[in-house]
Amino acid sequence: TMDCGAIKEEIRKQGEIVRQLKAEKCDKQKIDEEVAKLLALKAQIGTEPVAQKFTLKTPKGTRDYDPKQMAIRETVFDTVVRCFKRHGASTIDTPVFELKETLTNKYGEDSKLIYDLKDQGGEMLSLRYDLTVPFARYMAMNNIQTIKRYHIAKVYRRDNPAMTRGRYREFYQCDFDIAGHYDPMIPDAECLRIVSEILSELKLGDFVIKVNDRRILDGIFAVCGCPDDKFRQACSAVDKLDKLPWSDVKAEMLEKGLTEESCDKIGSYVQMAGGLQLVEKLLSNEELNQNKLALAGLTDMKVLLQYLDLFQVTNRVQFDLSLARGLDYYTGPIFEAILLGNQDANKERVKGETVGVGSIAGGGRYDGLVGSFHPKGKSVPCVGVSIGVERIFSIIEANIKKEKGKTRTNDTQVFVASPQKGFVEEKMKIINELWNANIKAEMSYKKNPKMLNQMQHCEESGIPLAVIVASGELDAGTVKIRSVGSREERTVDRSKMVDELKGNQNNIPMFSC
Amino acid sequence: TMDCGAIKEEIRKQGEIVRQLKAEKCDKQKIDEEVAKLLALKAQIGTEPVAQKFTLKTPKGTRDYDPKQMAIRETVFDTVVRCFKRHGASTIDTPVFELKETLTNKYGEDSKLIYDLKDQGGEMLSLRYDLTVPFARYMAMNNIQTIKRYHIAKVYRRDNPAMTRGRYREFYQCDFDIAGHYDPMIPDAECLRIVSEILSELKLGDFVIKVNDRRILDGIFAVCGCPDDKFRQACSAVDKLDKLPWSDVKAEMLEKGLTEESCDKIGSYVQMAGGLQLVEKLLSNEELNQNKLALAGLTDMKVLLQYLDLFQVTNRVQFDLSLARGLDYYTGPIFEAILLGNQDANKERVKGETVGVGSIAGGGRYDGLVGSFHPKGKSVPCVGVSIGVERIFSIIEANIKKEKGKTRTNDTQVFVASPQKGFVEEKMKIINELWNANIKAEMSYKKNPKMLNQMQHCEESGIPLAVIVASGELDAGTVKIRSVGSREERTVDRSKMVDELKGNQNNIPMFSC
Repeated sequence: TMDCGAIKEEIRKQGEIVRQLKAEKCDKQKIDEEVAKLLALKAQIGTEPVAQKFTLKTPKGTRDYDPKQMAIRETVFDTVVRCFKRHGASTIDTPVFELKETLTNKYGEDSKLIYDLKDQGGEMLSLRYDLTVPFARYMAMNNIQTIKRYHIAKVYRRDNPAMTRGRYREFYQCDFDIAGHYDPMIPDAECLRIVSEILSELKLGDFVIKVNDRRILDGIFAVCGCPDDKFRQACSAVDKLDKLPWSDVKAEMLEKGLTEESCDKIGSYVQMAGGLQLVEKLLSNEELNQNKLALAGLTDMKVLLQYLDLFQVTNRVQFDLSLARGLDYYTGPIFEAILLGNQDANKERVKGETVGVGSIAGGGRYDGLVGSFHPKGKSVPCVGVSIGVERIFSIIEANIKKEKGKTRTNDTQVFVASPQKGFVEEKMKIINELWNANIKAEMSYKKNPKMLNQMQHCEESGIPLAVIVASGELDAGTVKIRSVGSREERTVDRSKMVDELKGNQNNIPMFSC
Repeated sequence: TMDCGAIKEEIRKQGEIVRQLKAEKCDKQKIDEEVAKLLALKAQIGTEPVAQKFTLKTPKGTRDYDPKQMAIRETVFDTVVRCFKRHGASTIDTPVFELKETLTNKYGEDSKLIYDLKDQGGEMLSLRYDLTVPFARYMAMNNIQTIKRYHIAKVYRRDNPAMTRGRYREFYQCDFDIAGHYDPMIPDAECLRIVSEILSELKLGDFVIKVNDRRILDGIFAVCGCPDDKFRQACSAVDKLDKLPWSDVKAEMLEKGLTEESCDKIGSYVQMAGGLQLVEKLLSNEELNQNKLALAGLTDMKVLLQYLDLFQVTNRVQFDLSLARGLDYYTGPIFEAILLGNQDANKERVKGETVGVGSIAGGGRYDGLVGSFHPKGKSVPCVGVSIGVERIFSIIEANIKKEKGKTRTNDTQVFVASPQKGFVEEKMKIINELWNANIKAEMSYKKNPKMLNQMQHCEESGIPLAVIVASGELDAGTVKIRSVGSREERTVDRSKMVDELKGNQNNIPMFSC
């Protein structure tokens, strides 16, 4: 839109800027930016449209979701959200970035993985690292005492991405939490019921939900002679028991300074797993039940398992003393759902890691976190669960690939077509009627498309029905309704078209696997 | 969880770090961070939980969405997405940040409003400024020739926020675009039909969709003697005609160096508005129809208006020669939907700006943008529309406030209650049956809540039905079903409870206004 003379003048000025920056030995990024501007200006005198010289990619560790991936994502979120709503949850949203200080001292060593925004004047900001800290900030800031909310949003971690295994720098978290001063284990039991409902509905295969309690673990560490200041280290070692043999875990604990005797005693406890019977057995263990933390944890565990029985999820739940969970802020029950996978899935390994087997949801009680944000330290007990939706996407994608399933990227029911030229306006009248009747409908954006191409489009996109109009139909005041799959056609009165189509709409699943 | 001795040792070490940084005159941000860590450690020896000293707020120009705002947001998105799907659109998603160079030279002067990420090693990144550039990048990167997609996501602009008027630094965009080499005006007409469907369904009041064509404007500028290199400046002046009187617009054009004669001639054109008749009149204007651009634009406008008539939106559409649109990349038809508001709404002014009146959707054809990203400059013609969802949220929120309407934050149908103590397990059995039957149900998280509190909760949350159980019902194998609104109760067999409730579920709107 600028004339050549004006552009040449711009190029001259921009060249001056670049030369000056180079002379001043300005930082490379700045120079590169100005050079890019110069090249873009120069390109304007060349052919239109201007081809850019830059790299066409998404940032490291991130990806676009294409329509097929989005169809899977939508189906998963739909199932998850329906469950949350069945349990009366509302939802909130928070900004993608927080004040830097809100995130400071919340993630220990992992703080180095936080994305900071550039200082462009004003506040220092960071991208959110999880949804729990923003939730606690929201609660404290608005002085909220009770809430049952879910939050589905992307979080950001400058981790080493392993994209083939579904580990990204930008990824979804999907959290459900119940906050408020309530009676023991009633909200906790509902969280576990929710995990069970979601995993059952998603049909990902068999799963088990492991439960434990931080107080039971701390009680065990205490009675086994582990010093107070080594509890978290012992906890972190025990947490690896799902991946490492006991001997390796023991070695780690010895290295952290625990005695051989302590380790062996801890080992005898944390390798136990069972149900209500095991809780009763530990409750009658006089060493443990003298420890206040262990007693409180075991008493609650008994109540929890009884409630879970009423919620009909006992067959999915296992009290597993090796479950420790990574995060520091848990104060009571903790849980983790594991996909058991089948033999096929176990064979399907990507670079040594199994796809479709492993932790798929986790959570627990954290009664102190909100208080740590509140100006007066006012605490709000919370229990919550996080559904591993990214893992779920990967599993479903892998299943579709394995089964060579098709994914629809829209849910169009009817395609309006004509084998004759000159019917674009007639097709528009018809599709207008369909849209008015809330029928999902498409037609070609070409004026005179070939019939073959129109039918191929239906087959490829999985559109089940076509309305066909040509001069014969137009004269008779009819249309043909064609079933794309069977190629059967029948002629119906134009006035009955909408009713006929509405009766024939069906819910084709967005993908099969 | 650490003992006092260990914390004191940590404090000593952290104090050392701070002293050293200060001695080295390190940058203030770094020192502040380490001081914050030190204070946090010191606070740990104080009372538990630790009250933090930092500001509890969201970053400047951003906000949390609370459950009521989310209920409105969901309802709006639901209407918008249902419409997009009715037209066969799929959806994509892109990362929240892009390589900085992807955004360079795309936004002219507004580039200064782009949020950059801090250089933490690796690529230089920026938060997305809109959804159109990421879409064009996605298309070029994947060499996509045709797509009909929508994208709803947040974008980021370091603008001066005006939050009382609904202008934020983090806000939603909601874009629908049709890309591909098609016949003129068929996708364009569908975009306008979509705007009309969405605004009608949202019931925001009367609206008009103004349409114009960049080629018609450029043709007018040319025949009025405006120099080529002043087209965009003239365009930007004309764009203000909806807010300023012609005299002010003319003054701006004179200032940009247009002649008095040019200005007056442009003025006589751009103040015209009408329908198909006006197009015909201009097509027979020998001055205009000699200009290739104007002729092409007017010819397409005629086709577009004819198609819009078949799509039954003519009464909503006005061909308005003053519509110019801000963005540089439009190459053909442009459009903008304006809420007309009613007299009441016109009176309702917030700081001089009307709420509920003004531009609510806009878009147009941009045939060159994708090509500017493609390594070989391969172009993909696009036409799209952006729905102003943030404005729509504000209008609905204002309406609810005005009408003193209530907003539900969940859609719970049944509350399970008991007037007696000791019924938590019985209530759990009942609610478990309801969840199994996919009925949205809640109960108190207290073991023995007061009946009054339970019923109050139902009234406040708008839960329509309660299932009540006490010893009488338990013995008789029945439950009471109570209508919360009318307080009517009836006793039904426990075995018929689910069927009774399913028959009585109703869709209560999430808000009324």
